[in-house]
Amino acid sequence: MEKNIYFFGEGNLKMKNLLGGKGAGLNEMTNLGIPVPPGFTITTEVCKYFNEHNKEYPQGLKEEILSSMKKLEEITNKKFGSNENPLLVSVRSGAAVSMPGMMDTVLNLGLNDESVVGLAKKTSNERFAYDSYRRFIQMFGNVVMGIEHKYFEEILDNKKKTRGVEYDIELTVNDLKEVINEYKNLFLEKIGKEFPQNPEEQLFLSIEAVFNSWNNERAIIYRRLHNIKGLLGTAVNVQAMVFGNTGENSGTGVCFTRNPSTGKNEFYGEFLINAQGEDVVAGIRTPIEIIELKKIMPDVYEELVSIGNKLEKHYKDMLDIEFTIEDKKLFILQARVGKRTAKASVKIAVDMEKEGLIDKKTAVLRVNPEQVNQLLHKQIDYLAKQKTRVLTKGLPASPGAAVGEVVFSALDAEEKAKQGKKVILVRLETSPEDIKGMAVSEGVLTVRGGMTSHAAVVARGMGKCCVVGAGEIVFDEKNKSFSVNSQEVKEGEIISLDGNTGEVFVGALPLVEPEISEDFKKILSLADEFRKLKVLTNADTPHDARVARDFGAQGIGLCRTEHMFFEGNRIVAVREMILSETKEERKKALAKLLSMQKNDFIGLFKVMKKLPVTIRLLDPPLHEFLPKTNEEIQEVSENMGVPPSKLIEKIEQLKEVNPMLGHRGCRLAVTFPEIYEMQAQAIIEAACELKQEGYDLKPEIMIPLVSSEKELRLVKEVVENKVKEVLEKNNVKLEYKIGTMIELPRAALTADEIAREAEFFSFGTNDLTQTTFGFSRDDVGKFIPEYLENDIIERDPFQVLDVNGVGKLVKMGLELGRKTRNDLKAGICGEHGGEPKSIEFCHKIGLDYVSCSPYRVPIARIAAAHAAIKQEE
Amino acid sequence: MEKNIYFFGEGNLKMKNLLGGKGAGLNEMTNLGIPVPPGFTITTEVCKYFNEHNKEYPQGLKEEILSSMKKLEEITNKKFGSNENPLLVSVRSGAAVSMPGMMDTVLNLGLNDESVVGLAKKTSNERFAYDSYRRFIQMFGNVVMGIEHKYFEEILDNKKKTRGVEYDIELTVNDLKEVINEYKNLFLEKIGKEFPQNPEEQLFLSIEAVFNSWNNERAIIYRRLHNIKGLLGTAVNVQAMVFGNTGENSGTGVCFTRNPSTGKNEFYGEFLINAQGEDVVAGIRTPIEIIELKKIMPDVYEELVSIGNKLEKHYKDMLDIEFTIEDKKLFILQARVGKRTAKASVKIAVDMEKEGLIDKKTAVLRVNPEQVNQLLHKQIDYLAKQKTRVLTKGLPASPGAAVGEVVFSALDAEEKAKQGKKVILVRLETSPEDIKGMAVSEGVLTVRGGMTSHAAVVARGMGKCCVVGAGEIVFDEKNKSFSVNSQEVKEGEIISLDGNTGEVFVGALPLVEPEISEDFKKILSLADEFRKLKVLTNADTPHDARVARDFGAQGIGLCRTEHMFFEGNRIVAVREMILSETKEERKKALAKLLSMQKNDFIGLFKVMKKLPVTIRLLDPPLHEFLPKTNEEIQEVSENMGVPPSKLIEKIEQLKEVNPMLGHRGCRLAVTFPEIYEMQAQAIIEAACELKQEGYDLKPEIMIPLVSSEKELRLVKEVVENKVKEVLEKNNVKLEYKIGTMIELPRAALTADEIAREAEFFSFGTNDLTQTTFGFSRDDVGKFIPEYLENDIIERDPFQVLDVNGVGKLVKMGLELGRKTRNDLKAGICGEHGGEPKSIEFCHKIGLDYVSCSPYRVPIARIAAAHAAIKQEE
Repeated sequence: MEKNIYFFGEGNLKMKNLLGGKGAGLNEMTNLGIPVPPGFTITTEVCKYFNEHNKEYPQGLKEEILSSMKKLEEITNKKFGSNENPLLVSVRSGAAVSMPGMMDTVLNLGLNDESVVGLAKKTSNERFAYDSYRRFIQMFGNVVMGIEHKYFEEILDNKKKTRGVEYDIELTVNDLKEVINEYKNLFLEKIGKEFPQNPEEQLFLSIEAVFNSWNNERAIIYRRLHNIKGLLGTAVNVQAMVFGNTGENSGTGVCFTRNPSTGKNEFYGEFLINAQGEDVVAGIRTPIEIIELKKIMPDVYEELVSIGNKLEKHYKDMLDIEFTIEDKKLFILQARVGKRTAKASVKIAVDMEKEGLIDKKTAVLRVNPEQVNQLLHKQIDYLAKQKTRVLTKGLPASPGAAVGEVVFSALDAEEKAKQGKKVILVRLETSPEDIKGMAVSEGVLTVRGGMTSHAAVVARGMGKCCVVGAGEIVFDEKNKSFSVNSQEVKEGEIISLDGNTGEVFVGALPLVEPEISEDFKKILSLADEFRKLKVLTNADTPHDARVARDFGAQGIGLCRTEHMFFEGNRIVAVREMILSETKEERKKALAKLLSMQKNDFIGLFKVMKKLPVTIRLLDPPLHEFLPKTNEEIQEVSENMGVPPSKLIEKIEQLKEVNPMLGHRGCRLAVTFPEIYEMQAQAIIEAACELKQEGYDLKPEIMIPLVSSEKELRLVKEVVENKVKEVLEKNNVKLEYKIGTMIELPRAALTADEIAREAEFFSFGTNDLTQTTFGFSRDDVGKFIPEYLENDIIERDPFQVLDVNGVGKLVKMGLELGRKTRNDLKAGICGEHGGEPKSIEFCHKIGLDYVSCSPYRVPIARIAAAHAAIKQEE
Repeated sequence: MEKNIYFFGEGNLKMKNLLGGKGAGLNEMTNLGIPVPPGFTITTEVCKYFNEHNKEYPQGLKEEILSSMKKLEEITNKKFGSNENPLLVSVRSGAAVSMPGMMDTVLNLGLNDESVVGLAKKTSNERFAYDSYRRFIQMFGNVVMGIEHKYFEEILDNKKKTRGVEYDIELTVNDLKEVINEYKNLFLEKIGKEFPQNPEEQLFLSIEAVFNSWNNERAIIYRRLHNIKGLLGTAVNVQAMVFGNTGENSGTGVCFTRNPSTGKNEFYGEFLINAQGEDVVAGIRTPIEIIELKKIMPDVYEELVSIGNKLEKHYKDMLDIEFTIEDKKLFILQARVGKRTAKASVKIAVDMEKEGLIDKKTAVLRVNPEQVNQLLHKQIDYLAKQKTRVLTKGLPASPGAAVGEVVFSALDAEEKAKQGKKVILVRLETSPEDIKGMAVSEGVLTVRGGMTSHAAVVARGMGKCCVVGAGEIVFDEKNKSFSVNSQEVKEGEIISLDGNTGEVFVGALPLVEPEISEDFKKILSLADEFRKLKVLTNADTPHDARVARDFGAQGIGLCRTEHMFFEGNRIVAVREMILSETKEERKKALAKLLSMQKNDFIGLFKVMKKLPVTIRLLDPPLHEFLPKTNEEIQEVSENMGVPPSKLIEKIEQLKEVNPMLGHRGCRLAVTFPEIYEMQAQAIIEAACELKQEGYDLKPEIMIPLVSSEKELRLVKEVVENKVKEVLEKNNVKLEYKIGTMIELPRAALTADEIAREAEFFSFGTNDLTQTTFGFSRDDVGKFIPEYLENDIIERDPFQVLDVNGVGKLVKMGLELGRKTRNDLKAGICGEHGGEPKSIEFCHKIGLDYVSCSPYRVPIARIAAAHAAIKQEE
């Protein structure tokens, strides 16, 4: 015969499938001799039987439950329904996987007109007893019997109105008794039966409700959406209630085995004397620090600390423990792995590894790579934030925090920054021309755009706090102000941004500086022991490259050369190039850019030394370099001595309906090969110069937006001819590679062909996500929120790589590419290169590297280690 | 021992691999007893040997060649190098596959200072002989020895200048002799050796040159580009020259076994007495109709006709025969399948099938589906066109021809059309608002856009002549004029368009009306016997549906509902809907559209009866329905009583960076489900009404732009709930389907998941091409020409389905979809649905149907039959 019921201690942690997560934990603790309030678990097998047999229990189950209750009465020396010393129980569901949507909890089951008297006696608190009874009827009526909440609330509200009071707590015992009567009437009216006074009936109805809730709609949808399969059902835990409010010898609290904020190895927590758990949550009384318990009840404190130590050793992690003291007797209600700050997680992992409690791999796994972000950026002070009203909320595009004066143009930003002012650049959206203004700002706020809009990508690259897509903002560039719900913010006013949450505040909030501790360095070096993926960086300037190297980047995976086109007065030469009517004119303009680009590369090469530097040739459409507004056109026209009409004509001529799918990337080189020739020349001349100075360089030239082998071959020939020409002229021998971005579906689908011409692949998952989904990253803001809300997509695919669709293409592209060239070097350089889940996927499919913005390099190192360790296991 | 040389008649047509195409043909004809000038073929094996053995011949080859030459001398009774009756030969390359880039032909080989005298005697034409000698030195020097053409031309030009004459023909025999001397000097200077007087040396050098040309760069590139593999090399054909200019008993001509223009079964052709082939080509003398030959040389004529009959019976096709008569002796120089008009190809196929010459399958295969287009549309009179200067050339977006007054706006088009004028609408590009104007125009001309731009797609749908992307045009909408290279065309002036070539002419050219003959109907019905693919149509109006049915469409594969939103004053309701601030307002506006859409569907259903009608729910982004220019905004504002500022705000709010990848398709239904609800209601109410009248309907509702299963599920639920509601309300039972477009890479990649929710797939290869390549069809005009020129792409992928990339996705999507749902109905409805090569692919991968614009239905029927027959074979 199957065992249907496990009295706490008969099972253990390994029996999660049978006992559910909660049940297995309570059994395990009981086994360890931890003073858990006694109880028992009805198995998931019973739930399965129940649902498969037309809501009937297996034979004999009722009797088993009743005899288990008897055992509970004996152990607790209390009696179910007693008016002296009543046994009250909680009934909780608990499947192997935590699952919202199922029935959760019924507390204080066993209360009735009799036992409420017993509870009053026992706690010497009549008000508490009747309030508990009222709450029990409400909870039971709602959760178990399905009576809508609002009916109970109505009764309570009416009572408060009649009594002229505002809060529940102001109702007297008599008031509560009247409410209880009205609740019972409501119950009768809605259910057609009296509220059950018999505790056993209460119990069986509750157990049935738990089993039924396994197949309610919300639970089914939840399982479908989260692809949870193969579970039998939910278990039911019936556990004796204990009371922390029976007097001055009782109490309740929460403690942590180590400090969850700093990670320091110290017992930490707080408690309340003569209180129930809900008093702690309600926040009416201020809890006392746990160390005070040592003075009040030294034995209990010692026991608690020793239980903490025992549990920590057993679970090998910092634990969050809920406890109740009933008449000087300590009960542990729950122990679970404790939440902690990034700083604490790092310190605890390093300490525990040193203490020999966990091994190196576990230490690395204990640090959540995403959370590590906190350690790399400024934060708004937690408490200050709690007290400040949020003005509006956008998307958290780049982490950190910023405080500064509002400016509305890149030029204003530069000017004010020169005056030593800290500024926050607010724009409708940013364009490459804003880059200098962004660079001098503390933070950037845009009204439009998504997580991979221009502002977001550039700010992340700069490690600069950025909030995008704050659509509530009404933007008034002319009057240099913006407003949210008619609250106006003018130029010069100070605002604060939280790049981790997307929140915007008016005024200056205090910031907390980031700190890279020795512990953090230790975790990173442990991570490096395990990871297989190389971590490269996306960097366009020597400064970014330096930051990334300091964070451990192993090369540059993506240098976007177009960013260099905006520096200083280069843009003038770029515009001359664009306005050229003939190839000769174009070459003349390009010649002006040559030495500047060359110096850029020299700067990068000097920082990266012999690490690989992958340089992507010009990618954006040419119209991005032309002025946009009439004022800008006027200005450029004057600067260049070109009539505005010519500029306007060119702008009109280059206008595109869908620039993302237009004349850009290597398509530019098919029509204007001289652009790539200039860039190749600049790269190789830079390399030759340094090579002659003794540097050992490995430049890699990357051709973007390739869609076919023939296209790559043609453009590669243009580049390679120039490379060979420069090398010959300088009489230098150089190791170099020419490869391509795989960022269009067709490139991935025909990667076997493309690999014939490409020495390396870099999967550009930003563009690949745009084309695979047909989502313009600049426009998805209009519908992505609804998509997330409706669970159509679980996560923004521009943040977390879409494994099923885009990932399938990446995998296919990699496999096809390696079929042609088995030593093909391949990685990704989209925004996903710094995102842990995406990194895990990159590891699984066997990419060689990920490349991410400098500030995400440490995150990627840890995430890559996680992926490797998890796969090994 | 291998046989290295086949004397004509020793080989046959099946030996193409060994003898090359040309050699095999000459052997075959000789076998048939056709009087081919004698000669021999050196095999491709020899070429292979030569190239693999350091340019050496197989042992004994030279001797074999010389003895073959002896045999030639004997048969012709002429002598190589003779000054009396010289044997001259041609040397031609000829691989199994025709291949530009290889050395082609050397004529009159054997001429030297001696034999030129013989030729003069033989032809009694000294001038001809010396001119032939001059040409031979030039051809030999250039083709065989690689001396650049320009040097020879220089000498000739100088001579003409010195003599003060304009044409070659004006040079005297003495002039030619001087030129010959100068040519010889040039030869000596460039080659370092005298021009070879020895005919044998000339021969061997020529043969070697042919073998060498197999591996020259152009030939290698050609083979690589066209994926020609597995060939041994080229053969060499050495053939005796015959002369049609030896006197009045000689001549030369070209004839066809049937009339290549009408297809009539009559001997057809023309000839010249006392002439060489080049005289016919030069067009100096006017050829005589072949029937005249009957009078002049009745025996030769009879022989020629009987050879024509024999060859036609042998090759089972209409042939194009080149012949020469030398002293009353007839020689056939070449016989190949003759080119013909569409009309002729249809008539010849039908006649030959009736005559029992070919079977039904062959008859169908004989009609080129693309060429059939000519039969369905007006054409510009061929001769008139030849005489008229082309103003400019755009892309041939929609076939046919049009003549009309130029108008510059859709409204002007409507107005003038009302006055009974024929107009041609000229626009920068068209938008959905122009549709009514397009409908009343004879043709449409746009400055921008590619083969699948709005104008192109809509015009093809309407079967209306259209030229797009005529980029040379400078467009001046304000002054209602346009100009090309400063030639101005004003409103009201008449132009003519050729939609088959993209040519634009000033003035009214005469048009030829299309004609659907009984023969054509016969071919279509034969095609239907063989094809497996169903042919549906893309139609949005009862008129289009009717046209398509008349052309044999088996249902509507794509009805674009958005086109209905522009009819009459519906656009006002659509705009009200877009300007709505709340769901209620939106529903109110949609309610106005409901009955109109319902009537649209009733119209379509009535035409299609029980054939399937697939209706795509709203696809384009909402901003497409809003006014664009300030004038339009003003007008709409007045019409609707809405302030312009509100319109501008909405336009600004809906603006997208990449509308193609933006808020459109089913994404609209995720944010505004009420739009699809209205459409579903209109469809089902229409169906219910007709069902009650006794119609047997099968509406299919198609959800566009789906990227994931969850998205489709959500939108499908919205639609299905409405469908069920309407059916219940009307108490009607109806067979209906809900399916989806597969037009995004992610949809194809996850088609197994999507098929769980979709009852049918329609591959939208237009959008799929855009996203797979990352090509915006509205913007590719900027670089596609260079891509075609550089052979990066062989054909515009928006015209011919890209099998390697887009096709791979379609195949994958189909296979994955059928894995989930093995009875999944699937087809394509992009522009490719009417393109023969794409249709062949659709057949191969096992799609159920193609859907194309009405005027392409006949083309698709034939193409589908071709695909099925070819696969069977």
